[in-house]
Amino acid sequence: PSSGTGDGMFTSSADLQGLLYTESELVNKLNEYVQEETERIESLKKLVKEYEALRDNAFESGEKFVGNPLNSFLLIKKLTSDWKTVQNLIQNSVGEKFVANLTEQRDNFVLRWPSDEDLNGAATGLMRLQDTYRLDTDSLSRGIFLNGQEYGPTLSAHDCFELGRQTYNNGDYYHTTIWMEQAMKLYNEEIEKTISKADILEYLAFSAYMSGNIRRALKLTNEMLDLHPDHPRGWGNKQYYEQTLKKKGASFQKRGEDG
Amino acid sequence: PSSGTGDGMFTSSADLQGLLYTESELVNKLNEYVQEETERIESLKKLVKEYEALRDNAFESGEKFVGNPLNSFLLIKKLTSDWKTVQNLIQNSVGEKFVANLTEQRDNFVLRWPSDEDLNGAATGLMRLQDTYRLDTDSLSRGIFLNGQEYGPTLSAHDCFELGRQTYNNGDYYHTTIWMEQAMKLYNEEIEKTISKADILEYLAFSAYMSGNIRRALKLTNEMLDLHPDHPRGWGNKQYYEQTLKKKGASFQKRGEDG
Repeated sequence: PSSGTGDGMFTSSADLQGLLYTESELVNKLNEYVQEETERIESLKKLVKEYEALRDNAFESGEKFVGNPLNSFLLIKKLTSDWKTVQNLIQNSVGEKFVANLTEQRDNFVLRWPSDEDLNGAATGLMRLQDTYRLDTDSLSRGIFLNGQEYGPTLSAHDCFELGRQTYNNGDYYHTTIWMEQAMKLYNEEIEKTISKADILEYLAFSAYMSGNIRRALKLTNEMLDLHPDHPRGWGNKQYYEQTLKKKGASFQKRGEDG
Repeated sequence: PSSGTGDGMFTSSADLQGLLYTESELVNKLNEYVQEETERIESLKKLVKEYEALRDNAFESGEKFVGNPLNSFLLIKKLTSDWKTVQNLIQNSVGEKFVANLTEQRDNFVLRWPSDEDLNGAATGLMRLQDTYRLDTDSLSRGIFLNGQEYGPTLSAHDCFELGRQTYNNGDYYHTTIWMEQAMKLYNEEIEKTISKADILEYLAFSAYMSGNIRRALKLTNEMLDLHPDHPRGWGNKQYYEQTLKKKGASFQKRGEDG
């Protein structure tokens, strides 16, 4: 199976070659951008050193400093003429232009660019492949699939998280749970974390809730709040799960009375 | 004379203390800015490395790469979900905000800020001091003044250039010439140049012209064009000086005929 599952969920080989070209162009452009920005910051650092030297000289000289007319001139120059140079370096960051150029190339079809739907399609295709060949999640994320015959790339915790997020958006909570659990497993192994534990716990709670396991959703949310007490949605989610549990308890009781 | 020439050309000692406070605040804020930008660029570099790894892996794997559905997913993820992170880092440069904050502090008088007129005043004051005490330009620029009694800061070629530019704006071409010549002397000594030779030559030509020495203005302009053939104003200036010389020749002749 060298060109995907053949069910139309993957874009064609030619499409992917186009995306590879885009990716390769992006690497060149990003390196240029990083180079430009590094030079800009280096120039700025040199100027800041001069500002520091004047300040240090002033503090060391005390009253004598302002009595010297050469110092007055240099101090005023630092805050007028030289400051314009500093200001230009600060405002001359090429970020907006860089992004605008790329957006133009995308909009004019110079560079092929996948959409969020393409990402969802690729994730869905992978899930179908996993189901069809009954591939083990852990092996798959480590690049081993088709009974250990093929070696692919290895996934990061963030890659597994993204797979889980896409399947969650498709209402496929079974795959959400197993891929978020795999994300957590890899998170615990990663030295340089690619995602936060709170993000994984939040999605695990979402999928537990959507699968009808509200107690588990609440437990996972509490775990998340222990880690991240100022989580922007955590306390709201907790309250919602608690209210749902209460209502459910009430409705169980009611059903019990009714039936 | 410990507080300037006393002729009101220098701002008061208290004023200068205020400017020193501004300068010191600026050093802190600039260091914060440089730190933030350095961290932003470092984060970006890490992400670019990941983009490079994917590209290199794709080139090494050849046709096999696009046949692997995990690769397709990762490639599409790099250009959608991950790209958003890169784009945020690029657009999240805090330069505009940084300058806007400082401008606000200046406009609300939180930080004292000198104007271009203050710079001109400080330069004029220095020239007066130089004339009054007949201070030698070279010694003054090296921090030695009042017959070697006092040591001040040393000036860079750019500082001397700025003094020359301010006096030029005041129509004081005598001081323009001597300070631009001092700028050139220091330029030749500087390892890390603080100004371009062309900039100094252009002002030397201006002041020669304004002092009536058009042949010298033309000679200096030719020297500048040798160094910098694509100088934005050089060829226009040259043409102007040549035409002026021609007309003057004509008017000399005419006067000769008339008188």
